[in-house]
Amino acid sequence: MKNNILILILFSVFVINAQTADEKQLKSIYNASLVKGQGYDWLNYLSNQIGGRLSGSIQAQKAVEYTKKELDSLGLDRVWLQPVMVPKWVRGTPEFAYFETSPGETTNIPICALGGSVATPQKGVKANIIEVKGIEDLKALGRKNIEGKIVFYNRPMEPTLISTFHSYSGCVDQRYSGAEEAGKYGAVGVIVRSVNLRLDDFPHTGSMSYGETPVANRVPAAAISTNGAELLSTTLKLNPDIKFYFKQNCKQYKDVESFNVIGEIKGTTYPNEIMIVGGHLDSWDLGDGSHDDGAGVVQSMEVLRLLKETGYKPKRTIRVVLFMNEENGLRGGNKYAEVAKSKKENHVFALESDAGGFTPRGFSFDCSDANFKQVESWKKLFEPYLIHMFVRGGSGADVGPLKNENIVLAGLRPDSQRYFDHHHAENDTFEHVNKRELQLGAATMASLVYLFDTYGVKLPPKIKG
Amino acid sequence: MKNNILILILFSVFVINAQTADEKQLKSIYNASLVKGQGYDWLNYLSNQIGGRLSGSIQAQKAVEYTKKELDSLGLDRVWLQPVMVPKWVRGTPEFAYFETSPGETTNIPICALGGSVATPQKGVKANIIEVKGIEDLKALGRKNIEGKIVFYNRPMEPTLISTFHSYSGCVDQRYSGAEEAGKYGAVGVIVRSVNLRLDDFPHTGSMSYGETPVANRVPAAAISTNGAELLSTTLKLNPDIKFYFKQNCKQYKDVESFNVIGEIKGTTYPNEIMIVGGHLDSWDLGDGSHDDGAGVVQSMEVLRLLKETGYKPKRTIRVVLFMNEENGLRGGNKYAEVAKSKKENHVFALESDAGGFTPRGFSFDCSDANFKQVESWKKLFEPYLIHMFVRGGSGADVGPLKNENIVLAGLRPDSQRYFDHHHAENDTFEHVNKRELQLGAATMASLVYLFDTYGVKLPPKIKG
Repeated sequence: MKNNILILILFSVFVINAQTADEKQLKSIYNASLVKGQGYDWLNYLSNQIGGRLSGSIQAQKAVEYTKKELDSLGLDRVWLQPVMVPKWVRGTPEFAYFETSPGETTNIPICALGGSVATPQKGVKANIIEVKGIEDLKALGRKNIEGKIVFYNRPMEPTLISTFHSYSGCVDQRYSGAEEAGKYGAVGVIVRSVNLRLDDFPHTGSMSYGETPVANRVPAAAISTNGAELLSTTLKLNPDIKFYFKQNCKQYKDVESFNVIGEIKGTTYPNEIMIVGGHLDSWDLGDGSHDDGAGVVQSMEVLRLLKETGYKPKRTIRVVLFMNEENGLRGGNKYAEVAKSKKENHVFALESDAGGFTPRGFSFDCSDANFKQVESWKKLFEPYLIHMFVRGGSGADVGPLKNENIVLAGLRPDSQRYFDHHHAENDTFEHVNKRELQLGAATMASLVYLFDTYGVKLPPKIKG
Repeated sequence: MKNNILILILFSVFVINAQTADEKQLKSIYNASLVKGQGYDWLNYLSNQIGGRLSGSIQAQKAVEYTKKELDSLGLDRVWLQPVMVPKWVRGTPEFAYFETSPGETTNIPICALGGSVATPQKGVKANIIEVKGIEDLKALGRKNIEGKIVFYNRPMEPTLISTFHSYSGCVDQRYSGAEEAGKYGAVGVIVRSVNLRLDDFPHTGSMSYGETPVANRVPAAAISTNGAELLSTTLKLNPDIKFYFKQNCKQYKDVESFNVIGEIKGTTYPNEIMIVGGHLDSWDLGDGSHDDGAGVVQSMEVLRLLKETGYKPKRTIRVVLFMNEENGLRGGNKYAEVAKSKKENHVFALESDAGGFTPRGFSFDCSDANFKQVESWKKLFEPYLIHMFVRGGSGADVGPLKNENIVLAGLRPDSQRYFDHHHAENDTFEHVNKRELQLGAATMASLVYLFDTYGVKLPPKIKG
């Protein structure tokens, strides 16, 4: 009994000391980030000197060069570019749309082509509209009601969900597969209500797919603003015969070469255990991609800088990976995982920031029970920074391809209320990112990386062969 | 033993049912707020049709009339105006300031008079500057270094604190008492670095006091923007002899009559137990007072509307109180408490929202241990709405005068990172309030009111006489 008590006391002392060292390290990371964080300046450059960085564009190439140069200046052990072929889709001249209540009586509607859409014929598309609340409505309507018309997908985001990402998931199929499905019933075009909770005048682009549809059968698809969608829907109720016109001359080119940008600090003790933090360097072209995902890019770069700045020497190899082409192809994420596999690299942890530069609230984890239990034991360490949300679920699109049973995948979860106001739209711009919120996110990521590096990832019990 | 188990089962069933009813009621409140909240439209009117509502101004009077009219339309049991005399301070023509590196070589600096300051002489004040990091520096410098000069208080907000309100507390004495103290050493004017964490070009006003200083000895005081303060400080290091000029013609008038606006739903079971929710109707004059405290006003009105909308009949009397003159006098808060006392009204709970319309994170409580314990037992109910922060500490300035040992005072605690970017400045405007964040705050307040109404406030044990 006495021995047990002694062990208990010794253990407690050890735990208390360990705790204190962790508390100190987190404090030092947060202080460094809040007092002399560099992420906001990097983001300023990416957003205001480079701008929107669609895959295959000159801006995307400039972003590769700029972030490579900045990583070079951090004194990491290695910085390199990983080549990857990416799709090149170009919007062309600004899109234009109106509806016509009677010949010559037109009302303009803010519109933008969806990424990957085909162009309209040069003179545009003009047709009657059939409004639906989702793809599932098409079957009931049938070809007789759809053929020759423009299908208008108008299911709004569900406002009662607290995570706006859940509302997004409930709507985005209209944007992604709406044209493929409507084309099967003879639609001549597709317009989609922007996936945005707010009523405003910004159309929000985003990726779409024609699936296996032959090129000749692809119908042009575009997003209209939420205010535009409301107006159109109301007008249709009064007069179902109105016509909608839109014109876009976007174009898909051949794939071009681009790069993931990678930097690493070699681990002192377990150099072969690799932990990565990342965001995606490409963005849509309408705004400057500050929240999606300039924020994630600079926060990921900042993680390595903060670890160095606070004098922390990681036991494991820590990499920042700035992925190319998350938005319309995920080629960078796939390439990174493919190369990692071919080199038999052992990735134990991957954290992505791709949900905006807003006040961080926590993380979501895609990992084993044992690792999630470990994460929960760290909750107290994060409480002083108001980080409280440790949930299971998705991580990030770019790190997803690394998934296997040994790795911990994680995603930073910032406050989500404002995210879709800006997502993929003209107003995803630098002035909507708050410096402190961005810095708190970077510190939160660096703290989690520190903890996983310090305590390691729990491996699943080996199955006896 | 069997009986005990039976009781335990019955009790569990009861607890589970009770829990479920609470969960349902909260869900119904949040849904009502997110789907058809009215607060954002009210705020739009207050901000864009009325604007900044400084005590004693026409705008403040319009705000009284507008909110009274809106409360009248909600079908409450009673709506009334409570007269209160308020100070009337008027800014006059826009202030103007520059520093002069050599005669004729001037650089303009964004400036605004502090609320309550005296005017400069008509031709302005021009003098050398002595920069200090706080009131405590004055003593060491002494009259010989201060007399005839303008004292420049330049202690910035501490960036490493996670709650920006704590950083604010660490700086605001310079603004509030800086002129009173500097005047004692013969200063001819005072300029204060705006109490804002961000570097920008907005001067932030706010209240100040001359204490017991006779009118003849009062020196004019103003705030300059954070960028202005940085520039001035840097320039002073290069050239300590530069002169600073500023001119303002603000004026204090005699007190005028204004009103607290009050509405109530009579309690069904304990009508004499009064619970209040409130915010302050007055604001500073530079912006439109959307965050400070238009948000708190409309959220408080919304609490009563949401309870009615969800069909909840409160057992206790629930009042919304829109206080006048929080910013430069607290006359409304004091008057309300004075009247409550004189009428021997039994106030058991008071909740204020005066920290901006940002995503709600929790509440702070000024209450007994027993009541705080009760609040903590409700934490689980709030988790689905990401409300996680239940702390002890301040509540709100307006409800403070109600404090006694029986009452629970509470303050809504929204995310604080952006608050001081807008506080008391020209950019405290409607477009910086997000509709969903505002609605979530109102629902969070209504949920707490519902819980305290349902379970009551714990009274302290009676001391035997």
